[in-house]
Amino acid sequence: MSLRSTTKGRLVRVIVQPDNIEIHVPSGSTVAEAALIAGTAVETPCGGMGICGKCKVIVTEGVSAPDASEKRLLDPAELAEGVRLACRSRIQADTVITVPETSRSVVQKILCSGISRQVTPQSNIQKLYAAAPEPTLQDERAEFERIAETLGLRPAELQMDLETARRLSARVREAGYKVTAVVAGSELLSLEAGDTTSSKYGVAFDLGSTTVVGYLIDLNTGHEAGVASTTNPQMAYGDDLISRINFASTEPHGLEYLTRAAIDALNRIIRQLVTAADISPHSIYEATVVGNSCMTHILLGIDPASLGQSPYVPTVCRQMTARAGEIGVKINPRGLIQVLPNVAGFVGSDLVGVLLASMWEDDGRTRLAVDIGTNGEMALRHNGRTLACSAAAGPAFEGARISCGIRGGPGAIDSVRITDEVTISTINNRKPRGICGSGLVDAVAEMLNAGIVDEMGRLLYPDEVTELSPSVRQHLIMGEKGPEFVLADANRSATGKALTLKQRDIRQLQLAKGSIHAAIRTLVKVAGADVSGISELLLAGAFGSYIRKESAVRIGLVPDIPVERITSLGNAAGTGAKLALLSVKERELASHLAETTEHVELANHPDYQNEFMDMMLFPAVISER
Amino acid sequence: MSLRSTTKGRLVRVIVQPDNIEIHVPSGSTVAEAALIAGTAVETPCGGMGICGKCKVIVTEGVSAPDASEKRLLDPAELAEGVRLACRSRIQADTVITVPETSRSVVQKILCSGISRQVTPQSNIQKLYAAAPEPTLQDERAEFERIAETLGLRPAELQMDLETARRLSARVREAGYKVTAVVAGSELLSLEAGDTTSSKYGVAFDLGSTTVVGYLIDLNTGHEAGVASTTNPQMAYGDDLISRINFASTEPHGLEYLTRAAIDALNRIIRQLVTAADISPHSIYEATVVGNSCMTHILLGIDPASLGQSPYVPTVCRQMTARAGEIGVKINPRGLIQVLPNVAGFVGSDLVGVLLASMWEDDGRTRLAVDIGTNGEMALRHNGRTLACSAAAGPAFEGARISCGIRGGPGAIDSVRITDEVTISTINNRKPRGICGSGLVDAVAEMLNAGIVDEMGRLLYPDEVTELSPSVRQHLIMGEKGPEFVLADANRSATGKALTLKQRDIRQLQLAKGSIHAAIRTLVKVAGADVSGISELLLAGAFGSYIRKESAVRIGLVPDIPVERITSLGNAAGTGAKLALLSVKERELASHLAETTEHVELANHPDYQNEFMDMMLFPAVISER
Repeated sequence: MSLRSTTKGRLVRVIVQPDNIEIHVPSGSTVAEAALIAGTAVETPCGGMGICGKCKVIVTEGVSAPDASEKRLLDPAELAEGVRLACRSRIQADTVITVPETSRSVVQKILCSGISRQVTPQSNIQKLYAAAPEPTLQDERAEFERIAETLGLRPAELQMDLETARRLSARVREAGYKVTAVVAGSELLSLEAGDTTSSKYGVAFDLGSTTVVGYLIDLNTGHEAGVASTTNPQMAYGDDLISRINFASTEPHGLEYLTRAAIDALNRIIRQLVTAADISPHSIYEATVVGNSCMTHILLGIDPASLGQSPYVPTVCRQMTARAGEIGVKINPRGLIQVLPNVAGFVGSDLVGVLLASMWEDDGRTRLAVDIGTNGEMALRHNGRTLACSAAAGPAFEGARISCGIRGGPGAIDSVRITDEVTISTINNRKPRGICGSGLVDAVAEMLNAGIVDEMGRLLYPDEVTELSPSVRQHLIMGEKGPEFVLADANRSATGKALTLKQRDIRQLQLAKGSIHAAIRTLVKVAGADVSGISELLLAGAFGSYIRKESAVRIGLVPDIPVERITSLGNAAGTGAKLALLSVKERELASHLAETTEHVELANHPDYQNEFMDMMLFPAVISER
Repeated sequence: MSLRSTTKGRLVRVIVQPDNIEIHVPSGSTVAEAALIAGTAVETPCGGMGICGKCKVIVTEGVSAPDASEKRLLDPAELAEGVRLACRSRIQADTVITVPETSRSVVQKILCSGISRQVTPQSNIQKLYAAAPEPTLQDERAEFERIAETLGLRPAELQMDLETARRLSARVREAGYKVTAVVAGSELLSLEAGDTTSSKYGVAFDLGSTTVVGYLIDLNTGHEAGVASTTNPQMAYGDDLISRINFASTEPHGLEYLTRAAIDALNRIIRQLVTAADISPHSIYEATVVGNSCMTHILLGIDPASLGQSPYVPTVCRQMTARAGEIGVKINPRGLIQVLPNVAGFVGSDLVGVLLASMWEDDGRTRLAVDIGTNGEMALRHNGRTLACSAAAGPAFEGARISCGIRGGPGAIDSVRITDEVTISTINNRKPRGICGSGLVDAVAEMLNAGIVDEMGRLLYPDEVTELSPSVRQHLIMGEKGPEFVLADANRSATGKALTLKQRDIRQLQLAKGSIHAAIRTLVKVAGADVSGISELLLAGAFGSYIRKESAVRIGLVPDIPVERITSLGNAAGTGAKLALLSVKERELASHLAETTEHVELANHPDYQNEFMDMMLFPAVISER
């Protein structure tokens, strides 16, 4: 799903129901793209090819006439009622679109904190109340110096920009010289009338390429006052990073669209957070952001072009700061957006967040942290050094390019057991809609144990497996192009169609897990370490949290180490963003971690391709555990 | 001359000839106001009342019909040719106005440096050339870190704003990684292609309420590469500060107009400087500005309202920094405008500049610095303390409110001798056009010595003076309202009318000099010093430079101390701005001086009014010198 293929025109206004969200999109956008920009992802299992008919929406005007796919997949009664395929119908004028519950892609479940870190709030934002004396002929100090000195601050050491200076006099006079100074580091951000010191919030963002999560934090107490997430509306401009980089570089205003989409996502989350917590967005003074380098470059309006071509260098790694009002993030406009530092082009601040969350340097053990998404990013701590790399795993772990793959969410098969019978479970115990990444790993691990898949990754034909129980054997059927393993038959499935795994799904998993494992092995080798010496393996991210550790080892996604050494961190990147928001000491540590982490370029490493070939295979024998 | 009295409309375009300057002014502006905004001050001795007929200009369309004054003062042939009075004709539509040489007010002569200060250039702006290695798979550092590290700078300690970050990648790639980094303090301002280190300029501005002067400085060598000045176009909105503060506070967009006028003045000077020196304005990276608090507040767009009412507090005293592009100053848009710190509402950074220029704290002597303009600002150093105050002298020293008073410039009478005859000299030896401030002080000193004026300030009648030589006696005549002292008769005068001093001119001088001397005495008293203990009296500013010291003492403008203790500094405020531009150490010293100077509020001091009454009189007997 990409906007690149079609000429886009002027912006038109679209209302997306039932959430009543108003957006503006270039005419020519598909309804699916528009819905995504509005934060309502439409399920498009076929990738917007107009072949599955899953993305039904209702729209009666302002769109293109039904195309051949729609006429084939929708019956006349549906067309008469305005039912259309979101991936095929294109918006031509102002309109209203309704996305039925059945067509909606559910929001991904995200663990908020997998590890417990104690941190003393030491915010970069200070609020200081001053009841200053009014000026008299005996006390003619300037307004700024009057307030600063009342607060015990040295005026010469307190910065102030023009905007604040221009408003200062009127503000303090209106407030009768009883004002709260909002100070960030050494800068006076603003003055507020009266004593507002009790209201001081921040938001920590994990800006993922697929999902964006925000945590509202009370900066006085460190208390988490809310969490919200949304699909990254940039998905409308390309699923993967390379598509988005190309879009930014080649489309007129492409970078602007992408930046706007990222800002929109942050603003949507802020709206949700302030509404739920019943606070003013103006009482949010700082936000931290972690994400991969491409996401954070785009957020700041920095062209990511150099990330799209070898040698993949970012424009900047160090922490960057932007004024909220300058880039349109709707917290206090004087507030600061702190984008945490990157390690390298494809080792972003999200991995730095993971390291920060995991007290990375705290002991002398050899530790491995792996954050698995479309890109697998990982770091190894060994002998006082930290090495990091990234590997392109592809989207298999997020359910993409898998026949019945979906993202984690209600109805996603998240575990599979094969004993005398096949048992599946789904998130929220809903009727199964498809399989998510952790379910896929689990299913294949069990299929390996049951002898349904061999170590080369071949899915056996029903007549090749003789030792299965009759109940299990019924799950192995012959499809049009070969054998298929039935996870749920048409009767049990929420979609009305059987959910099966096919040979090509196993191959996609092999490619994905092979790239991750090969990267781990290369990193271990460069560090002069040994796989068996890894004391702790930290799995970060949603996928790493839901995966069954035994299954991850069984399929060879990670090295064969005792499972008790494996820890799931949850959304550790987000936890890192929270820590850096809460404490300037943690923020300094993040910069230290980013600066001292050595990047290993896999494309440059002679062993990586060989390891990749080996690691695509499944382990033959698993050690006793 | 003020815009306040008339309703102003939309902006119209005006070309001012012969300089061919295009400006935009609100319709309803007088032609004189428009000319002033264009930098061409029209001589308006009558203050724009339409009574002297001196401000003739040529304008044939887009202006109001001739009013009664014009019909009275212009003959029909002139009116037919488009001759109009600049102070009476109002602009209604786009037009062209021509200001003949005879109607132009000449630009004030300014001393560039009255004292010699040695300073080692240590600019806040560093230019560093980097020939960085291009990125490879073996060297994947980010663009920013690559450049910083090549220069030996720690990336984490180098700041960069979004605008620079957004341009950085394309810039370094286009330049093949051979770039010059422009660094201000700890901020990367910009990157330039190739090695541009040899071209690094700054401008030091003295933003006076009447005249604006700019000095172009080569920041590599400290060499002064040019000087230029212009009339402050804010004059169109009021001669004195209080008029301008009122205009800013009460007129819609008043502050905006005044800020625009100040910025226009700086830009006009910059254009002159870069044209004369044949450099690009982009190679100017920093400017320092000194001026009174009102001028610098307005320059930065800060409402000066609080300076217009008791207790006259400014919004801010500390040094302020603005980005050139942010406020529209046309040097390098990434460059910085550094507005030096103020001491108090009416003791501005111009006095701080004077103190900086005079090595103020260098020894233990008791020193007095006086900068005489419309406001007299002064500082006294005694027993390790610095006390400062300001006194409203009124515009007499600038030639205003004096019958034949004009500003210093060609044709202005700048010295008068009365021996057996009356001898005058004029600036540039032109035919006399009027008398300037230093000439007035000289004339009255001589008239006191000659017994033509008594110590009460009374101008004697011709029949009261018996001891004058016949030649001198001819100069004392009876005018319509009393005696007048003829400086130049109608035949000798450039105006065709006799130039005389009247009783009310003497009174104006008494008020002005009384306020200055009373302020000095109050300051001396508050400091616990004694007038006779003043080791050095520094006279700053154009007036202070041209004045004859003996005459200043004779009329009691300054205390009766030996003239060899009196030093003329020239434009010391501008010299201070140059020092602060050239060296960060000097800039720190300016902040130190501003912070440690104690302000004495005369309005608050019980002795000041009494001193003022006494000091309005002329000294009876002068000590031997």
